[in-house]
Amino acid sequence: MPDTSQRAFSLDEAIPILERTPRTLDAILRGLPAAWLHCNEGADTFSPFDVVGHLIHGEKTDWMPRARMILETGDQRAFEPFDRFAQKEASRGKTLDELLDEFTRLRAANIAALKALALKPSDLDRRGKHPKLGSVTLRQLLATWVAHDLDHVIQIARVIGRQYTDEVGPWTAHLRIISGTQG
Amino acid sequence: MPDTSQRAFSLDEAIPILERTPRTLDAILRGLPAAWLHCNEGADTFSPFDVVGHLIHGEKTDWMPRARMILETGDQRAFEPFDRFAQKEASRGKTLDELLDEFTRLRAANIAALKALALKPSDLDRRGKHPKLGSVTLRQLLATWVAHDLDHVIQIARVIGRQYTDEVGPWTAHLRIISGTQG
Repeated sequence: MPDTSQRAFSLDEAIPILERTPRTLDAILRGLPAAWLHCNEGADTFSPFDVVGHLIHGEKTDWMPRARMILETGDQRAFEPFDRFAQKEASRGKTLDELLDEFTRLRAANIAALKALALKPSDLDRRGKHPKLGSVTLRQLLATWVAHDLDHVIQIARVIGRQYTDEVGPWTAHLRIISGTQG
Repeated sequence: MPDTSQRAFSLDEAIPILERTPRTLDAILRGLPAAWLHCNEGADTFSPFDVVGHLIHGEKTDWMPRARMILETGDQRAFEPFDRFAQKEASRGKTLDELLDEFTRLRAANIAALKALALKPSDLDRRGKHPKLGSVTLRQLLATWVAHDLDHVIQIARVIGRQYTDEVGPWTAHLRIISGTQG
């Protein structure tokens, strides 16, 4: 039986995940009662609203800018550090629908730009320099883009689901989302 | 600052989550390369394809049938035990798109039926008997339905994201999905 718990990175399999994330966030969040959008897991944790802003900031400053830097200048100069809390300011005064629309637009443009690079397999081995993690490959950057999207889909579902921690009663043990076993 | 990490159960807030799950699964999964649909986390774990079948089985045998049993017969007789692996047989030979369509149809019918019950707040305190967990309320059953949906959205994102465990390189530590810290 083949190992079905690890895959090698491939652009053809990664891009369909990246393309779907705006639709996924839209499906979960658009039109949801406001209480769900602004709940979180305590001080300095993200609400679903915060997550969308965080992903927007990534589209603008992280993934494709870093990919271009790897291709253009290699690992001579470190990437700009990523600001995990930039969305606090940037999202202020915006509605969730505006943020979802902005993320959808930015992601579509970035995917189009990624496809336009027409990367060869050997390009994926090219290296850049992360300000903290050191030397990284373009392959690692793009695989992280995919995993990062899914990490935040998980976060949104977890933040919302855990609001009912006290409400599920004896079912706690059956729900990884609430029991806190890896979920 | 209000506590934003716990909410009391309310039908008006729970139903919008339940209504969105078919769209969410559709957004993540429909049209995705088959390799993503059938990957898992090892022996006896669910693939994304398995999850959709599991949710279908829940629509048929778990949530609304148990809610009706609470309202009709109370806690005199225990619920039928839920078969966590029923989908292995039931999904055989079906395509993912067929399963997504079936889940969408069943969920819509169940939400319509839930609304038609026109539950009063006092109904939420009515009790049923779980075959293992003992006495449970209708409120706990419905809160668990919500959390269970989100648990499986998380599972789908986690199963897919972890396929790139070896591909993200030094970013492992930044990604909860892969580092295995609660996510």
